[in-house]
Amino acid sequence: MIETPYLLFLGDAPDQLAAKVAQGIRDWRPDNSVGQFRMEGCRADVRLPDMDLATAKAAGAKTLVIGVANRGGVISAAWKKVLVQALEEGFDLASGLHNLLRDEEDLAAVARATGRQLHDVRVPSVKYPIANGVKRTGKRCLTIGTDCSVGKMYTSLAVDAEMKARGLKSSFRATGQTGILVTGNGVPLDAVIADFMAGSVEWLTPDNDADHWDHIEGQGSLFHVSYSGVTMALIHGGQPDAMILCHEPTRAHMRGLPGYDLPSLEAVRDMALPIARIANPACQIVGVSINTSGMGEDEALSYLEATEKRMGLPACDPFRQGAAKLADALAAL
Amino acid sequence: MIETPYLLFLGDAPDQLAAKVAQGIRDWRPDNSVGQFRMEGCRADVRLPDMDLATAKAAGAKTLVIGVANRGGVISAAWKKVLVQALEEGFDLASGLHNLLRDEEDLAAVARATGRQLHDVRVPSVKYPIANGVKRTGKRCLTIGTDCSVGKMYTSLAVDAEMKARGLKSSFRATGQTGILVTGNGVPLDAVIADFMAGSVEWLTPDNDADHWDHIEGQGSLFHVSYSGVTMALIHGGQPDAMILCHEPTRAHMRGLPGYDLPSLEAVRDMALPIARIANPACQIVGVSINTSGMGEDEALSYLEATEKRMGLPACDPFRQGAAKLADALAAL
Repeated sequence: MIETPYLLFLGDAPDQLAAKVAQGIRDWRPDNSVGQFRMEGCRADVRLPDMDLATAKAAGAKTLVIGVANRGGVISAAWKKVLVQALEEGFDLASGLHNLLRDEEDLAAVARATGRQLHDVRVPSVKYPIANGVKRTGKRCLTIGTDCSVGKMYTSLAVDAEMKARGLKSSFRATGQTGILVTGNGVPLDAVIADFMAGSVEWLTPDNDADHWDHIEGQGSLFHVSYSGVTMALIHGGQPDAMILCHEPTRAHMRGLPGYDLPSLEAVRDMALPIARIANPACQIVGVSINTSGMGEDEALSYLEATEKRMGLPACDPFRQGAAKLADALAAL
Repeated sequence: MIETPYLLFLGDAPDQLAAKVAQGIRDWRPDNSVGQFRMEGCRADVRLPDMDLATAKAAGAKTLVIGVANRGGVISAAWKKVLVQALEEGFDLASGLHNLLRDEEDLAAVARATGRQLHDVRVPSVKYPIANGVKRTGKRCLTIGTDCSVGKMYTSLAVDAEMKARGLKSSFRATGQTGILVTGNGVPLDAVIADFMAGSVEWLTPDNDADHWDHIEGQGSLFHVSYSGVTMALIHGGQPDAMILCHEPTRAHMRGLPGYDLPSLEAVRDMALPIARIANPACQIVGVSINTSGMGEDEALSYLEATEKRMGLPACDPFRQGAAKLADALAAL
């Protein structure tokens, strides 16, 4: 559990895209951050008050979150200076970088000396159980993609936000590093040891009120040969009552796999449902989420309309249109 | 790679079953072992010459393999004495125990001092790649179970042995600790980090001669919610040309999951084939392997006959009948 509120570290981000983790936190949990910390030359801005460490501390910030990608896979000396100072001023640090904070000797030493926490959200900090398959109370919705990076996290966050806005009981359950930093907790599923994958998802989505929805962030794709095992564990550990199919229509091939075409939404449906019904015989596919960012407005709307008709399911782009249709479909279940 | 030949350590095994790892090595790779080492009170016997360390060393043994389960999850002082002496006399040690040899301070110290290797086959010793899905040359056959522990390793080993006996090019590819100890190498798939599971299977079964068969040891089951992700990674990383369905007909429920019935062979076929064809569109199911150890002879034979008829596939129990039918089916592919 990462302590909130955060101060978002944007460093010397060369452009807005480099700060997409910070942007995600800002978009989805605006109350989790008191401000942003930008170094000289920073070209990103997530529209939070600019603060130095002392000001953020006075505003209540507990954790400095690295919300920016690092260049060249190293934590630069310029960053280090800020990070060390933050530890000394009483901040914990949280990071989803591939280089772990704990592996940086100077940071580890200062953290030890000051008693502060280094949260490396790419690696598990919990000893997960082996899945037991026992039915849990409460409702669960899992996003299932035709491919990696088609909008599964965004969709789960959007439906969660819509249900919360309606006053319904709802939680987003993060399974990747961005999601974990957004919410302050979760399971970095791609770093979990094989035998414990499904068990970690059971752990992440425990018994809950009968009318509570967990929105489980999907990972990979049943059709992505590099990561399909992770998707499988999410379905069987998550035992979803509902699944939302996620797709990006303009992609030429599976991400990182030039020889592999994307499957149709029908193919994903037909493969995912029998798999899900092993763990939860009542599981239904309730809707389709289309990432239309590569399409113009008219094209997007007609694609969505055609998809609804073809699939017999509500279809929307939660970024363009909000997730009301998907929340309606879950409420109707 | 564990150096052969072995001396098989049976310790103070309370019964034959406790030495099943040693028995597996003895059955499947008789040439890999020069003898067995039994302590006082040992009640197992894998019918190899009894040898002390010096005799085995003189006979060429390179590695002392722990072929017996340990009681109470500890490596006893009596075992330790033998293991330390073996290191001092120039043996490497290999073990599939949950307690790692490397975690025993005394063993680790002696191994360092003597320059010997400690092989803990439960944990990976290789940095595996992420799967790239590129089609590899050579042929691959994967065993697929209705459940865990229904005879997948045995079936893969039996078909490999049958093909070798026919002078065909064939390798057994181990994915679990017993298989790794039998052959001296492999991937301990249940201990691999999620992102690298499919890649480790690609690594295990590289390009080969066009007429060479890899027999990949299956793990778990697509229908076993605790481990299905591992099975999925085997199918997509293995990109099998052929799959053999494995089943144990007398089991009351999925192993360790009292609430879950076993699937039918048809259900496994119908789920596994579309999954396999993502990575290899030519994949076929070629036969059925039935573990009939819980049945009398007549019952077993009529079950096999009925299964052949029902499934339209050759069916046999490789332990009772040999794997000729399955090797025929692969040869006919």
